[in-house]
Amino acid sequence: MNDLTQTPEMLIGMMAARARKATAILAGATDEAKAAALRAAAASLRAAKPAILRANAADMERGAGNGLIAAMLDRLKLDDGRIEAVADAVEQVAALPDCVGRVIDETRRPNGLVLSRVRVPLGVIGIIYESRPNVTADAASLCLRSGNAVILRGGSEALESNRAIHAAMVEGISASGLPADAVQLVPIADRALVGAMLRAAGLIDIIVPRGGKSLVARVQDEARVPVLAHLDGINHSFIHASADPEMARTVAVNAKMRRTGVCGAMETLLIDRAFPEAASLVSALLDARCEVRGDAGVRALDPRVEAADESDWATEYLEPIVSARFVDGLDDALDHIATYGSHHTDAIIAEDAGVAEDFLRRCDSAIVMWNASSQFADGGEFGLGAEIGISTGRLHARGPVALEGLTTYKWLVRGTGQVRP
Amino acid sequence: MNDLTQTPEMLIGMMAARARKATAILAGATDEAKAAALRAAAASLRAAKPAILRANAADMERGAGNGLIAAMLDRLKLDDGRIEAVADAVEQVAALPDCVGRVIDETRRPNGLVLSRVRVPLGVIGIIYESRPNVTADAASLCLRSGNAVILRGGSEALESNRAIHAAMVEGISASGLPADAVQLVPIADRALVGAMLRAAGLIDIIVPRGGKSLVARVQDEARVPVLAHLDGINHSFIHASADPEMARTVAVNAKMRRTGVCGAMETLLIDRAFPEAASLVSALLDARCEVRGDAGVRALDPRVEAADESDWATEYLEPIVSARFVDGLDDALDHIATYGSHHTDAIIAEDAGVAEDFLRRCDSAIVMWNASSQFADGGEFGLGAEIGISTGRLHARGPVALEGLTTYKWLVRGTGQVRP
Repeated sequence: MNDLTQTPEMLIGMMAARARKATAILAGATDEAKAAALRAAAASLRAAKPAILRANAADMERGAGNGLIAAMLDRLKLDDGRIEAVADAVEQVAALPDCVGRVIDETRRPNGLVLSRVRVPLGVIGIIYESRPNVTADAASLCLRSGNAVILRGGSEALESNRAIHAAMVEGISASGLPADAVQLVPIADRALVGAMLRAAGLIDIIVPRGGKSLVARVQDEARVPVLAHLDGINHSFIHASADPEMARTVAVNAKMRRTGVCGAMETLLIDRAFPEAASLVSALLDARCEVRGDAGVRALDPRVEAADESDWATEYLEPIVSARFVDGLDDALDHIATYGSHHTDAIIAEDAGVAEDFLRRCDSAIVMWNASSQFADGGEFGLGAEIGISTGRLHARGPVALEGLTTYKWLVRGTGQVRP
Repeated sequence: MNDLTQTPEMLIGMMAARARKATAILAGATDEAKAAALRAAAASLRAAKPAILRANAADMERGAGNGLIAAMLDRLKLDDGRIEAVADAVEQVAALPDCVGRVIDETRRPNGLVLSRVRVPLGVIGIIYESRPNVTADAASLCLRSGNAVILRGGSEALESNRAIHAAMVEGISASGLPADAVQLVPIADRALVGAMLRAAGLIDIIVPRGGKSLVARVQDEARVPVLAHLDGINHSFIHASADPEMARTVAVNAKMRRTGVCGAMETLLIDRAFPEAASLVSALLDARCEVRGDAGVRALDPRVEAADESDWATEYLEPIVSARFVDGLDDALDHIATYGSHHTDAIIAEDAGVAEDFLRRCDSAIVMWNASSQFADGGEFGLGAEIGISTGRLHARGPVALEGLTTYKWLVRGTGQVRP
C-alpha cells in the first residue's frame, strides 16, 4: 500500500475509533439526555442560520461555477424556511419514543437463570449521501436518538453547508453533555474516503447510502460493511379476477401517478386474464396521462398502448410510464414478480380474501399489500415517525427502517451464582 | 475469467436458483408439512444406516490412508449409536415450535390500513463445515424447519458420509411432498466451490460456517454474503469488590474449567482491587489445575502464577489456562473488556445490584451475565432447542442463533382500497 491509499483508511479508522468510544458514553446516557441533546442541536441550528446560509451561498456559487444543473442546485439550496424545517425535523426525532433498553422477551430457566433480550444501539453507523444538506441533520438525529455514533460523508458539492450544519449540531450536543464524537463529518471531499468507509468492516457496523441509484449501486458493490438500502423499486400491482373494478382503477392510478419518482410507485401492472374490466382499467391509466407499455393482450385493449419488450418488465421507470401484461391467476402473477421484481413493495387488488391471504403469504417482498396503493410504502405512512431508508435486503431490517432498525439486541442473563453441571 | 473459475460459480449459481425455487414452494407449505418432512427424513436416516456406515467406512479408510490424526478420524467416524443420535436430533428439531408466520406486531393506521410484521424464512442458507458428518443433518433440519432452503458444503474428508446422509434425508423429504431442492449438498470436494459460495451475494442470503477458527476466519475474510459466526470467545469474568467470595470462586472455576474447549469458557479473570479475597480466588483456580497468567498484582498472590504478557489479554486459550489481572472498579473492567474482548460472553460477579445493572447495560457483548458461569452461553441452555451457531456480529441475530435467527420478517398491509392523498 502506498501513502495515498493509506491516508483515507487511517483517517476513517481514527474517526471510527473515536465514534466507538462515543458509543460507550452513549450507552450510559439516559433517554432524556439523548432527547435533550437533539433539542439543543435544533436550537443551535436555528441560532447558526446566518453561518449556514453563508456556507450554503459559497456551495451554490461553486456549484453554479462548476455547471451543476438546476435540479441539483435546487437540492443543494438552503434558505430560512428550509433551515427551519431541518431544525423542526430534529425536534420531531427528539420527540420519538426511544427503543433502547426495551425488553424484547424474557424467560426464566428451570435453574433459576433469568434471560432477557434487550434492545441496544447498533454501534457506529456510516451515512453516505449526495447533495441534500438536510440529510446531515436528519441522519445524525436518527442515529443519535437510537444511541448510535454516526460518521457522515456528504457530497462534495455541499461540503461547506454540511460543515456548517454539522458544527451547529455538535455545538448543541456538546453543550448538553454528550460527546461531540457521536456525530462526525468526514472533513474533506476526497472520494477515496468513501472507499475507506465501505471497507471499514468491524469499525463501522452498517452503511446507509442516501441518494441516487448510482450511489447505491456503488455502495452495494464495493462495501465489505453491511449495507442497508434498496437499489430498485420494481413494484407490481396484481389485479385479481375478483377485484372491485372501481377500486382497481383508483388504486392503480394512485399507485402509479400520485408521485412517479418515489421508490414505492407501481412500475408494472399485472392483470388477471379473468378480470372482466381490464379495458377500463388500462384506459384510466392512459387518461391520467400515463404511458402504458403492454403485451399483446393489453395492446388489444386500447390503441394508445405501446409495445412492451422484455426489458420493460425489469425497469424502474420513476416516470409516468407503466408496463402491463395479462397473467393467468395468482401463481402466474407470483412467478412474474419472483422473476422481475426487486422485493420492495407488491400489491394485490382482490375481493377474494383467500386468494389475497395466499398472495400475502407467498409474495417474497419487504412490503406486501392487499387493496392499497403501493405509494404507502414509507416510514412516515407506516407510523414510524421518520425513516433512515427502505431496505430490500433480507437480513436485520426489511422495508422502512426507522429507530428500531438502528438497534440490535443483547442477551442479559441474571443469576444467583449458577454454575453449569 | 477462465473456465476453471467459471465452473464453480455456475454450479453454485444453478444450485442457488433451484434452492430459491424451493423456497417459493416452502412458503406455501404448512408448519405440519415441514415437521412431517423432518420426521420422514429421520426415519429415512435410520433405514439407510447400512449405506451410511458403508460410506463412512470408505471415508475412514481414505482418511487413515491420507494420514488424518486420530482426533479428526474420531470426529469423522459414525457408528450405529451416532447415526441413531443424528436421527434423534432431526426428530427433536421437528418437534420445535415453528416461528414462521408469527406476527411480531400489528397496528391500525388512522386511514384504516392494518400493518403487521410477520416472520418469514430468510431464504437460501449456505452452511460450510468440516469433518463432522452429523452437521449435514443438524443444519439441514434447522434450515428446513424454519422454511429455508439450504446448500451444504461439508469437508472433503467426509464427502461419502455426507452424500449418504444427504441422500437419506432427501428421500424422506421428497416422499413427504416437499421439494428435494430444499436440501442440497455441494456434490464435489473442490475448494473453489467454497469461494463461489462466499461470493454468491444475492443468490445465497447468509452463510454459516461450522468448524475451527481457520475456517471461520477464511469465511469472514472472503465472504461477500453476510456471515453468521463468531471467531473468538475471549470471555471475561469481572469479580467486583462486592462479590460473594465463595460464589466468585465457584463460578470462576466453573466458567474456566468445566469444559475448557468451548467458546463460552472464561479466558480472562478481572479482579477488582477492592475485592478482599483475591488470593483464595486465584488459589482455587490453581488448585483446580488451571494455569494462571497474571499481572504483577496477581503474581504476588501465589508463587504458582506465571507472568502474563500483552498477548495473553487477547488470547482465547481453549485450554486450562486463564489470564488474570487487577482492575480499579467497574470502569476499568469495562475498558479492559472493550479493548481486548470479542463481544461474545462477559460476566460480573457482584452482590451490589446497582453496579451489576450498570455492567449489564454498558458491557457491549452479545451475552452479558450477572452471577452466573459464562459456560451457560449455549442455545440449549438458553432454551432455544438447538442452535445453528453463536454470533458475535451486531446485525440481525446476536448470541445463540436458533430457528428465529433463521427468519426475517415482512410487512403486510391490509386495506380496503386506500389511496395516498
